[in-house]
Amino acid sequence: MPSTSLPVRPDLAGLTPYGAPQLDVPVLLNVNENPHPPSPEVVADLAAAVAEAGPGLNRYPDRDFLALRADLADYLHVESGATGLGAENVWAANGSNEVMLHLLQAFGGPGRTALSFAPTYSMYPEYARDTMTAWVTGRREEDFTLDPAHAVAQLTEHRPAVVLLASPNNPTGTALPLATIEAVAEAARTTGPAGLDGAPTASVVVVDEAYAEFRREGTPSALALLDRYPHLAVSRTMSKAFGLAGARVGYLAAAPGLVDVLRVVRLPYHLSAVTQAVARAALRHRGALMAQIAELRAERDRTVTWLRDQGFTVADSDANFVLFGHLEDRERVWQGLLDRGVLIRVVGPPGWLRVSIGTAAEMAAFRAALQEVLGL
Amino acid sequence: MPSTSLPVRPDLAGLTPYGAPQLDVPVLLNVNENPHPPSPEVVADLAAAVAEAGPGLNRYPDRDFLALRADLADYLHVESGATGLGAENVWAANGSNEVMLHLLQAFGGPGRTALSFAPTYSMYPEYARDTMTAWVTGRREEDFTLDPAHAVAQLTEHRPAVVLLASPNNPTGTALPLATIEAVAEAARTTGPAGLDGAPTASVVVVDEAYAEFRREGTPSALALLDRYPHLAVSRTMSKAFGLAGARVGYLAAAPGLVDVLRVVRLPYHLSAVTQAVARAALRHRGALMAQIAELRAERDRTVTWLRDQGFTVADSDANFVLFGHLEDRERVWQGLLDRGVLIRVVGPPGWLRVSIGTAAEMAAFRAALQEVLGL
Repeated sequence: MPSTSLPVRPDLAGLTPYGAPQLDVPVLLNVNENPHPPSPEVVADLAAAVAEAGPGLNRYPDRDFLALRADLADYLHVESGATGLGAENVWAANGSNEVMLHLLQAFGGPGRTALSFAPTYSMYPEYARDTMTAWVTGRREEDFTLDPAHAVAQLTEHRPAVVLLASPNNPTGTALPLATIEAVAEAARTTGPAGLDGAPTASVVVVDEAYAEFRREGTPSALALLDRYPHLAVSRTMSKAFGLAGARVGYLAAAPGLVDVLRVVRLPYHLSAVTQAVARAALRHRGALMAQIAELRAERDRTVTWLRDQGFTVADSDANFVLFGHLEDRERVWQGLLDRGVLIRVVGPPGWLRVSIGTAAEMAAFRAALQEVLGL
Repeated sequence: MPSTSLPVRPDLAGLTPYGAPQLDVPVLLNVNENPHPPSPEVVADLAAAVAEAGPGLNRYPDRDFLALRADLADYLHVESGATGLGAENVWAANGSNEVMLHLLQAFGGPGRTALSFAPTYSMYPEYARDTMTAWVTGRREEDFTLDPAHAVAQLTEHRPAVVLLASPNNPTGTALPLATIEAVAEAARTTGPAGLDGAPTASVVVVDEAYAEFRREGTPSALALLDRYPHLAVSRTMSKAFGLAGARVGYLAAAPGLVDVLRVVRLPYHLSAVTQAVARAALRHRGALMAQIAELRAERDRTVTWLRDQGFTVADSDANFVLFGHLEDRERVWQGLLDRGVLIRVVGPPGWLRVSIGTAAEMAAFRAALQEVLGL
């Protein structure tokens, strides 16, 4: 019998699955989760929503989930003041990463390019790879801000179909000023690949606002720009602010014409009736959740201050995590923290570490462990 | 201001989203759903499972969902007698169509080909398109069976990376004999594209058993062949037999080496903790669900007999639907049924219609409406 080998796609050969280690450690500050479990009231409501959806589960879910999309539009209005958003402006999927996949399936592909600015979220090149989209990166400045002139030059040079701007950026925490996003979105009107008629199309500009709810006062959301740019999409998630990483609900807001293209590439019925019900139930509790976010923001600012007081360089953060450096041997520090029951993440440029913001007690454990490891 | 146009992938331009019409009609026999809502006991258990998972939802789900995979392996053992299956043999995703997407992402792609045999499931070419995989079809015989010699010749000619064999086939209901699957799987050992070393790889043979639980007595499952073919995958779903189309749980069984490749292309955390909890709770009720399936099978056989008694040509069905013909004007018949509150599906070769198996009352409504429309 001949040996049998699988026809693995050549560019996947030898790769291992993406993902941070899932370790069983007392203090988990490694994947930017919300440290607060859903309250008993929220849990009861989620279960009640599933009980209500239950008798209909033998039927396929609403493929266009307009009720959830309307609820998300309403939430964005309340959260950011964005006006004029309705269900037709919103798309959702199983986590932001499926939203990103839909964007790259719709606008990327062989012969096309996605552009971002490093250091940034490590999943972006995976989305590009999954869709056979070429991946190029410009650079952020030393302080992790983005120079608009450099960004526009990169668009003009690479003519990307999709530009990914994380704001606040992961792993640095850096939010972009609206002026930078405007500069990119203006240039992007004609920097996309040639269309079927040979005329230049736009580059789709995706502002990834996964951590937007944690932004400091005065930091704007790119949602305010949506009505001016039909090629702009602002993505969000319920994983972080809503504390629902386990429920997998990502979404975006954009012009209806852009959303309609995503409807072509999504697998039919991609969002289960259970997920729709759970997400809608959680959205009804947004008041209580927003109060929690204020507490996490304050804890984040305290962490930044404390790290600076210890002599670290700390990136300004509008997110629920903080990037700090410079560490001669970051792997050793990471391991030392882990040995003390605190799991953070080795990510970002060499010499930096990222810590997610946990509860006050978890951050105290982090500070104590770091002092021990470094003899501070 | 210049006009701004989106860089839609050229092969998607002008396409509309896939999907059967979602109409509000009393008798829904169009998308092969299970007509029985989950029982109050099942619904209560699903809600309890979500209540139990709720306090952990601020954390990302178990990326490898080994507990669910073990439960699914156990279910396959009970359902089909397949032995030697463990968690490492099973993969799951948000519906069978995401399972298929993972397969084509892992093994398909530009320059590669997926092969099936028409008439078959209309989503297959969409999975191919979504992954830039070329799509070719051989043919089924007049009675919708598959000639093994023709099938093997098509593999040899097209050297597909992936072969999709639906059994029972949708929309015809036709199950494949094990000998046919064996013939294809044997040939497939060396009919795949050349590997990195230039040697021929295997074609991955996917037997889509979405409707397997409805097969008639004596019809085998391809699960029995798994231990002989490392390039064979058998896909299943909880949408049909379990009556959980709304929960979106598809899965497959294969050799661990094949499953490991799917882990590379899946988006991390693609299966929510809620979906995992709901699926595991439903699997605990398999006894009651299997009893329901026996009833649907009997209703299916009665429907086949009745349609034949009326003079229709009816494809043998091992599924929860029946394809019947020949109708001079099937659109008129479909519309006539819809006017009488019965929604079925225009699908399959010209002149045929497909009716899903509903409850006894729903099938009586279908029969009465069809008699009226055709003046039988």
